[in-house]
Amino acid sequence: MADTLPATVHLVGAGPGDPELLTIKAVRLIRDARLIVHDGLVSDEILALASPDAELISVAKQRSRHSMPQDAINALLVRCALAGEAVVRLKGGDPFIFGRGGEEVDACRAAGVPVEVVPGISAAIGAAAQAQLPLTHRDASSAVTFVAGQCKGLTDQDWSGLAGKGRTLVIYMGVATAAQIADKLIADGVSPGLPVAVLENGTRADMRTLRTLLADLGDMVEREAVISPALIVVGEVTAHALAQDVLVGWAQRQSNGAEMRS
Amino acid sequence: MADTLPATVHLVGAGPGDPELLTIKAVRLIRDARLIVHDGLVSDEILALASPDAELISVAKQRSRHSMPQDAINALLVRCALAGEAVVRLKGGDPFIFGRGGEEVDACRAAGVPVEVVPGISAAIGAAAQAQLPLTHRDASSAVTFVAGQCKGLTDQDWSGLAGKGRTLVIYMGVATAAQIADKLIADGVSPGLPVAVLENGTRADMRTLRTLLADLGDMVEREAVISPALIVVGEVTAHALAQDVLVGWAQRQSNGAEMRS
Repeated sequence: MADTLPATVHLVGAGPGDPELLTIKAVRLIRDARLIVHDGLVSDEILALASPDAELISVAKQRSRHSMPQDAINALLVRCALAGEAVVRLKGGDPFIFGRGGEEVDACRAAGVPVEVVPGISAAIGAAAQAQLPLTHRDASSAVTFVAGQCKGLTDQDWSGLAGKGRTLVIYMGVATAAQIADKLIADGVSPGLPVAVLENGTRADMRTLRTLLADLGDMVEREAVISPALIVVGEVTAHALAQDVLVGWAQRQSNGAEMRS
Repeated sequence: MADTLPATVHLVGAGPGDPELLTIKAVRLIRDARLIVHDGLVSDEILALASPDAELISVAKQRSRHSMPQDAINALLVRCALAGEAVVRLKGGDPFIFGRGGEEVDACRAAGVPVEVVPGISAAIGAAAQAQLPLTHRDASSAVTFVAGQCKGLTDQDWSGLAGKGRTLVIYMGVATAAQIADKLIADGVSPGLPVAVLENGTRADMRTLRTLLADLGDMVEREAVISPALIVVGEVTAHALAQDVLVGWAQRQSNGAEMRS
């Protein structure tokens, strides 16, 4: 038995990058924290909100070594809390949208550690706002799905039916595999002519929003030298975005192709 | 031509209800606003952040009359902005997840009115955090989809393939049609034994999280007198939530049914 009562672990979403897109609650917890365990998606500007006395532990990928395995992160959170040290576990975006927050919550609860989750603006929701790209739209989409391009193996994932008419598919972490993603969707029956947008550096000042058609996605990512982090949005809603059309002939297709919006 | 330059319309997500889940940017815009056009999902606590001098216009449903039609809201925003009045258009959750923000952006851009969108914590993301219900989970789901139970006609909507093994389906505004939703999903091939959770009053102090199986969803909503606003989450991830199991025999199924989590 520990001598002290376990402290609480707060899993806190740090949002998409812009510190103004933190929630009030996240700012309060970051400012009051004595110990912050954060990953690489959390920007320096956000970490700068922490007290100078706070201890910051990064579990991010370093140049020469891998990121801390998830089991080790879980164990670290539990060990600190059982020793009576409250932990703010700061994660990019939202803890429950590809943040592996579920596993950390499971580990805390299994160890009898109190845990609370503070939601954050997920990367796609932040980037879509800045690009003026409605993820749902009365005329174009009544369902929006989030998947991850590098969550488990891409080929192991079943995305059938998630993209197409009346649906929006958002792919996180898909830039490196953009060509395979396009092939996978087309093999699943998605039209090669469906518009797609790529949102690079979402919510940052240097954000780029590029638009093309699904069949061109892989080539476009290479041609335009898109870098991570970036999101891929597949669906008719992308026609509404503020975006740079990078497929030759796009403008003509759009002006002729009223059926794409209907 | 107008005598003045058009002012900017800010479409601002007010999050799921708890004022601490507003973003820093939303608070700043609400405090500085001279004119706020808001809908009924925005709580009084949040409206109280506005300056006493600010004009507040509600486009919400009133007791005895319908809410303002979307076209009239669009026209109001454009008219104010063209007259030089900056508008904060405050919407529950996120403007682009069933917020009809896309139509308001379209209307502003068509009228030459500058528009900016500030994302918010969508209801499902806020409620899931509080219920400790991971919307994605390495062991249970690699795709999460948002749909709306009252967005257009329920029967007109195609939800095939959105729920099932390895997928999470979140239904907004589905309480009134919960029984039809269960029938619809089962008719589409979803297992009647798939666990579902209902999150009532998400992020509020009186939030309830109830869990049962899909086949019992309609009865359960009636039996437990679930009221709007509430979200329905369909999928294996609900097994991880902090929830009250309201189906007799659930505990036994869970302890026997390791396959539900694998």
